[in-house]
Amino acid sequence: MPVAAVVGGGVIGSAWASRFLLQGWDVAFHDPAPNSEAVLNGVLAKARRWVPQVYDDLPEEGTLTLCASIAEAVTGAEWIQESTPERLEIKRAVLAEIQAACAETAIVASSTSGFMPSELQADSIRPEQILVAHPYNPVYLLPIVECVPSGVVPEATIERAEAILGGIGMKPITLRAEIPAHVGDRLLEAVWREALWLIKDGVATTGQIDDIMTHGFGLRWAQKGLFETYRTAGGEAGMKHFLEQFGPCLQWPWTKLTDVPDLDDSLIDTIVRQSDAQAAGRSVSELEDERDANLVAMLKALRGQDSAAGAFLNDLGAATSSS
Amino acid sequence: MPVAAVVGGGVIGSAWASRFLLQGWDVAFHDPAPNSEAVLNGVLAKARRWVPQVYDDLPEEGTLTLCASIAEAVTGAEWIQESTPERLEIKRAVLAEIQAACAETAIVASSTSGFMPSELQADSIRPEQILVAHPYNPVYLLPIVECVPSGVVPEATIERAEAILGGIGMKPITLRAEIPAHVGDRLLEAVWREALWLIKDGVATTGQIDDIMTHGFGLRWAQKGLFETYRTAGGEAGMKHFLEQFGPCLQWPWTKLTDVPDLDDSLIDTIVRQSDAQAAGRSVSELEDERDANLVAMLKALRGQDSAAGAFLNDLGAATSSS
Repeated sequence: MPVAAVVGGGVIGSAWASRFLLQGWDVAFHDPAPNSEAVLNGVLAKARRWVPQVYDDLPEEGTLTLCASIAEAVTGAEWIQESTPERLEIKRAVLAEIQAACAETAIVASSTSGFMPSELQADSIRPEQILVAHPYNPVYLLPIVECVPSGVVPEATIERAEAILGGIGMKPITLRAEIPAHVGDRLLEAVWREALWLIKDGVATTGQIDDIMTHGFGLRWAQKGLFETYRTAGGEAGMKHFLEQFGPCLQWPWTKLTDVPDLDDSLIDTIVRQSDAQAAGRSVSELEDERDANLVAMLKALRGQDSAAGAFLNDLGAATSSS
Repeated sequence: MPVAAVVGGGVIGSAWASRFLLQGWDVAFHDPAPNSEAVLNGVLAKARRWVPQVYDDLPEEGTLTLCASIAEAVTGAEWIQESTPERLEIKRAVLAEIQAACAETAIVASSTSGFMPSELQADSIRPEQILVAHPYNPVYLLPIVECVPSGVVPEATIERAEAILGGIGMKPITLRAEIPAHVGDRLLEAVWREALWLIKDGVATTGQIDDIMTHGFGLRWAQKGLFETYRTAGGEAGMKHFLEQFGPCLQWPWTKLTDVPDLDDSLIDTIVRQSDAQAAGRSVSELEDERDANLVAMLKALRGQDSAAGAFLNDLGAATSSS
């Protein structure tokens, strides 16, 4: 069995450990906090409950070993996942301790949501084995992981990281440049700040904003992202036409954040080209059918749930039949 | 049968007509464009294909009447939905023509994504019957509709609008204040601008950004919004603790848009209070279970789909079994 070392527990590290274990890896776990084992057991119990409902072909679960030191955890590990608090001096110290004991061939991945790999690699004895593998909560179920190398990480290491992450059921996206907070959290931060204005100005409550998301664009974005959604909505006139219409809106008084990029011809062309490649020849009608089939499947699935969403959708059915 | 008039077709107006028809309303439709009937038929065919897969208890479909004039369409209608191009002078002229012929008791709703109701009501003979009912594409499937009154719209009219929209399977959210672009499109605009920076700076491609959304926070937001997601992620320490930790991040160099609100004690308290009301006594563990059950249901549903998402999830299963 391959071995993954998980250094730093909490919600994120514990869920990394759970994901590796359920995908058949042995896990060596280290976190000095007194409650770390309890947190790990709680997260692992949830993962054991939910993950097999998604995948009915899981391998036999790996063996979990609780380790008293970083050195003990990382010795012999093929993958090392660091999930310590989001403070640069802590992460650098932990990474130094990891590298003092781990194999030169191991991949040392950080869960950092904010720091760039070059910041983590500074003063490292082997910067080329450190990269960012940033997951999203709940790590045992959500597939996404942002893989961020710096220029000193060899291509072969990046490819090996992608293969390992894909092998434990994740969708690794390797970014083309390192920036603070990577990609997903920058988008989340933009939404967060706008939402804070809406709350502060009394336009909508947290519950209303959440409802607008869950019953609206959240259902879109669970199956088509920003660009493919707009591509689909743009209709047969195409992405370029859509963007040219949309461009002027960036100058409208729609938000309180006013430093906006110039949507010039060059940027439009870049987006059109990338969107074309992404569609890979599928027509707008085909994209619509995919979108609708996905929405139907999700809505039907949510109707059966014992949750606010399920209750609402069931209520909808009742309201519908009496209208 | 109640009658809805749909003034202005296109993708949005045609989908409004489809939703009303499938929910048993008669629809009087007017759009002078030569291709409007073809667009309507295309959208209606899709709605007839997909909506019954979500709801197996639909009433008998209403009767569609194509009308040669606005006056003919709106006479006798209980609900009038205006979906003309997003130009204020056009909308004001159309609304004036609608009000010249419609009943005083009718509700005149605009699909505008940008304009405030007070802007539409200016110079109107009966401003109190005009409000914004802003839907999201695809209107026949996505439940959300932002309901935006101005101060001159009576409470009874707002309640009647909410009842009618709820009766056709929608989730109406009535905003507490009118602002340009309402709520959802402001959030979308924030994401859009940040995404444009990421593309322009070469950090990620449109496809990568979409993948990060569809395999990450999109799956969250299809069933829990921004605030309840953070509440859940914050753990037992609570929303206030989470916000106090999160506050300083607003000062970090995470985006190129730098005009941010001050997350002071007053704002924190407002959000905590609203979030408490929203949770209605459910514990974090219960919220986690709801979230996970919803994610499982959606992932299982998407696996069966003939789409990129379904193909990816099936591939994941294959990759999993060989690891």
